[in-house]
Formats: sequence, C-alpha cells, structure tokens
Amino acid sequence: MKYLISIILLLALWGCTTTQPEAVETGDPLPSWNEGQAKEAILYFVDAVTNEQSGGFVPVPDRIAVFDNDGNLWSEQPAYFQLFFTIDKVKAMAADHPEWYSQQPFQSILEDDLETLASYGEHGLLEVVMGTHAGNTAEEFEADVAQWLSTARHPRFDKPYNELVYQPMLELLDYLRDNEFKTFIVSGGGVDFMRVWVEEVYGIPRDQVIGSSIKTEFVIGDNGPEIRRLPELDFIDDKEGKPVGINRFIGRKPIFCSGNSDGDLQMMQYTDSNEDLSFMLYLHHTDAEREWAYDRESHIGRLDKGLDQAIEKGWTVIDMKTDWKVVYPFELSAN
Amino acid sequence: MKYLISIILLLALWGCTTTQPEAVETGDPLPSWNEGQAKEAILYFVDAVTNEQSGGFVPVPDRIAVFDNDGNLWSEQPAYFQLFFTIDKVKAMAADHPEWYSQQPFQSILEDDLETLASYGEHGLLEVVMGTHAGNTAEEFEADVAQWLSTARHPRFDKPYNELVYQPMLELLDYLRDNEFKTFIVSGGGVDFMRVWVEEVYGIPRDQVIGSSIKTEFVIGDNGPEIRRLPELDFIDDKEGKPVGINRFIGRKPIFCSGNSDGDLQMMQYTDSNEDLSFMLYLHHTDAEREWAYDRESHIGRLDKGLDQAIEKGWTVIDMKTDWKVVYPFELSAN
Repeated sequence: MKYLISIILLLALWGCTTTQPEAVETGDPLPSWNEGQAKEAILYFVDAVTNEQSGGFVPVPDRIAVFDNDGNLWSEQPAYFQLFFTIDKVKAMAADHPEWYSQQPFQSILEDDLETLASYGEHGLLEVVMGTHAGNTAEEFEADVAQWLSTARHPRFDKPYNELVYQPMLELLDYLRDNEFKTFIVSGGGVDFMRVWVEEVYGIPRDQVIGSSIKTEFVIGDNGPEIRRLPELDFIDDKEGKPVGINRFIGRKPIFCSGNSDGDLQMMQYTDSNEDLSFMLYLHHTDAEREWAYDRESHIGRLDKGLDQAIEKGWTVIDMKTDWKVVYPFELSAN
Repeated sequence: MKYLISIILLLALWGCTTTQPEAVETGDPLPSWNEGQAKEAILYFVDAVTNEQSGGFVPVPDRIAVFDNDGNLWSEQPAYFQLFFTIDKVKAMAADHPEWYSQQPFQSILEDDLETLASYGEHGLLEVVMGTHAGNTAEEFEADVAQWLSTARHPRFDKPYNELVYQPMLELLDYLRDNEFKTFIVSGGGVDFMRVWVEEVYGIPRDQVIGSSIKTEFVIGDNGPEIRRLPELDFIDDKEGKPVGINRFIGRKPIFCSGNSDGDLQMMQYTDSNEDLSFMLYLHHTDAEREWAYDRESHIGRLDKGLDQAIEKGWTVIDMKTDWKVVYPFELSAN
C-alpha cells in the first residue's frame, strides 16, 4: 500500500515537473528565452530592484508591472482577436436584426467584405462594437465571450484564440510575481472581453485588468439587481489613455512596462519617468515563420515612433525571432 | 552578549504582541468585538465560505469584500473629513486667489460661515472641490494631502484624522484577509485623497481603492511626463455608482459588503444578488458618547432606507454601542 502511494506521488510529481521541464532542471526562470541582451537585461533589472543591498532596491508595494495584451501577451494578426469575436457576434445576432443586411457597416460583415468594413474606419468599428457588446447584462456578455472562446478557432493555427499566448511572456509574468511584483494588463482591448479568460491563462486577477470600456448602469431588473451595458463609450485605454488608466486604476507609477506598439509609447514614457529604477520592454515582431513580422508600416500594432524612442533611450527590445526559443505553449508539448 | 540579545528579542516580541494583546492571548480574531449576534454572524459566514466541506464554500478568487470608508472605516462627523481638507485648502490657497474673498461659495469658507456654504448645496461644494483639487499634478495633490494629514487635527478629538479609524473594522479587515479575501474600499470620497494613507492605515493597496474622481490627462510637461488633474468630474462613486464602480474596477460581484449609509444600499443589493453565499453588514452609529449617534435624519451618512431593508432582509446590523468594546485604536493604548 505504501509502495503504491509512493508511486502515485512520484507520478504526480513527474506530472508537475513536465509542464516546465527546463525551469526545474536548470533553475532558469525564463527557460523559453535564448541567452542574449533582452533576457540578461530583465534578469539584471529584477535582481537590482529586489536586492536590498542594491542601490536600485524598490519596496514590494511599488513593484508594479504593466503589460499590453494584443500583440504583447497574445497574437493580434491577421486582426485583433476581439474583432473576430465581434464579426461572429454580428453573424449570430443577424437573425434578430434583419435591418443589418442593408445597414452599413453591419452589411459588409454579413457579406464577408472586410475591405468595405475597413473603409468605415474606427468610427464604423465602434458602431459595430456598440451594436454587439451592449444592451445585455454583464453576466450575459461574459457568457457570450466564454462560449465563443470555447468554439472559435484562429484562421491560421486552427486553435482556440487563448492558446495563441506567448510562452516566454507567461514565464516573465511568473518570474515577476515570484519576485513580488504585482502584474497588471493595460490594454486597448475591451476590459470585459479580457476578464473572462485572463485569470486562467495569465494568472492575472480580474481586478488587475485595465482596458477600454463602455458605460454601464445599475438597475433592479426582472431578475433582480444587475449591471446593464449601455451603447456609449466610457474610456479608450490606448496611447495617452494608458497612463491615465494606470493612474485611475492603480494609483501608482509602474517600474516595469511591457508593450509592442506605438499605442504603448505613452505608458513607456510614464514608466520611464519613475524616480525609482524602471524597465521598458518593447516586443518587436520579427518572426514571419513562427508568428508574424511587422512594425513601422502595419495597420495593426504599428511600432514606429516607439521603436525610435526605444533605440534613442536604450529601452530593451525583444527580437522575437532570435530571443525566443518557442513562441506558443503548444510548441512545447509538440517538441 | 547572548543574554543581551535575548532581552532585546524578548522586548521586540513583547512590542509586537502588545499591539493586539487579546488576539494573541485568546486566539479570537475579533478581540474588540463583544460577543453577540453581529460577531457571531461574521464568524459563521467566514467559516462557511472557507470550509471546503461546507455547502457554502467559495473559491479564493471569488472572495471579494467591499468596504465603504466614511463612517464605516473611519468617522465622518461633524463633517466628511475630506471637507475639512478642502476648507483648509481654500484658506491656504486664498493668497493666490484674491477673487475668492468676494466669490461664493469660496467667500463663505474664508469667513468661516459654513451655514452659507451649506446653502450652496452639492453643486457649490463641487465647485470648491474643483477649485482646490484640480490644476496640479497627481504627485502635487498627493503631497498636499500628506502634508495636511500630518498637521491637521480633528476638532473634537484633537487627533490626526487618520487615527479616527475603527479598531473593530481593522480587525475585521485583517480577519478577512487571513481567510484569503481580497479587501477593497468602495467610497464616495475622492480616490486620490484616500490613496495617500489607506495602504498604511488599512493594509489595502492603492489599486484596491475605488472612489469618486475627476478627469485627468497625460502630458509631457516641463518636468517630463505627468498626470494633470482637470476641473471636470469623472465619476461619482455613490449609490448606483457603487455597483457600477465595482463592476468596472473589480469585475466580480462581492460576497461581502460593509457600509453604514443609504449611499451603500445599492452595493448591498448587488452583493445580496450573488449566487454564492454572501454577507451584508451595516454599521449603525448608536454611540453618542464614544463616537456619534445618528441615522434616519442625519444629513451626513443618513441611514434610513438601508436600515429598513437590512431589517426586512435579515442583513447584519452592528450596534456600535453594544457590539464594540472599543471604537478607536487609541483607546487600546489608553487602557
């Protein structure tokens, strides 16, 4: 009997270690990162702010780390994943909205004509978001997102969207938390879209997610008290909005900022202005083979001014192709 | 030498234990609460949601507890403490604003005529808040609040305002956190006014404070990137605003809600609608001797509809006079 228990325990332990084999074997907190400048700079920074003997020591409550999401923790090509959700939602709701078949920009979506959709620009997209993300309760919207995530598949990888997260960034999040950083998402994406799945996938609690939002109201409805989602913009968490959102939700200047586009530039500058030692990390998409390669000319996740400032100010830039051993977690189990 | 070290260690330990003598001696997590219905109900609830064998078990991420601040964690009489700050700020800024001496409602403050000030109502008060809380940077405003707290004294108790917090509530916060609850403040008070001191006093991190706010903007100023405070209301975290704020900032329905006025009623109803076991706790100010006694007729912290609903729905009501052994922490050291 004791023998059996030992075997079960050993198997259980073996099960645990196989999820991150290199971390356990080598003690390397970032096993999916190749040795190089980016990895070295991260390790050096974390060591400096956590070592009380170091001149750069930062007390635990001030160890705030902020991460953009789209293109930084998960992919954002060929379009923001929330756009795929929105398109699927328009199609699913169309039976109850016959007017959409002759009303732009909804019509273009129902006709799979994304070029025409794009011609309506940001304003048109917002109209579609309002038409599909509002009018229900917070719980109903969450159930929609969860349902979509469990069935929708990415066009290139044929995988659930929330499996297209970056393994090296998962390790970075864990590493920072192991060093008593508090990790936050600060994303232009919809906060209620993200909250459904980020806790499980990134280990980031719902209240540490900052994103764009629509207005809501509290009403006592037929089913009791509820939060109703209104077709009115509340907050756009992008560019100048990011430091504003950080100040509003966190109330403290970060010491660590991770992003991948010009939309993250202002929160990089804000973090850079911290009187404590701070770290700015840009992810440069350079890997057309395993992921995508894009920067200055891209409509999605453009990295132009941000790249210039990163070079000028000596911020750390990840070269995805050379710095990362693997991109997605599923590559690990495929090895 | 060893003997000396032992004595120092013993003294240090003694110093630690004397801060909460009864907790250490009896193992009672709420030593400043008298035995009675309120204390019993709290202990019973926490036991039920943390005991995996109990039908009421709630997983850790869902253990969200929200606390009103004014009149619930610290006193709010003879007026909200932030109003005293605002009045002192008007007086301190008056030299740079000679127009205030003939401009209402500022003039009434400078003439110590609070009756006239009150006649301008909420709108007049907001005008004063905008005149004194905006136009500077987030850091400058914080420095103002910190400076004020270190010098201002409460008119009745002649103590710093942040010493007028409730000892039994400090114990309740600790007790919930020891049971892996995440504790939040959800207050009508200004979020930036609270964040300066709540971390130290309540052990609640800045990002777990939800309150009323004015708009801000991110600018690259003369001193680099900064958050500028604008004279425009952003969010009033009161009444229907409280569940809206909880949904926006926490993204999860609480299972524990603590408040003291009708302004907390909607977040009580919201918490009560949780499908998990939930707990609603009203503090009734019944102690004119040690604190203040007020409820249905009070202009500050009115508890009228809330009291009716608490009785009707069987929510727990703290009777300050009979349920609390001490009100303020300084009574402990005076014993």
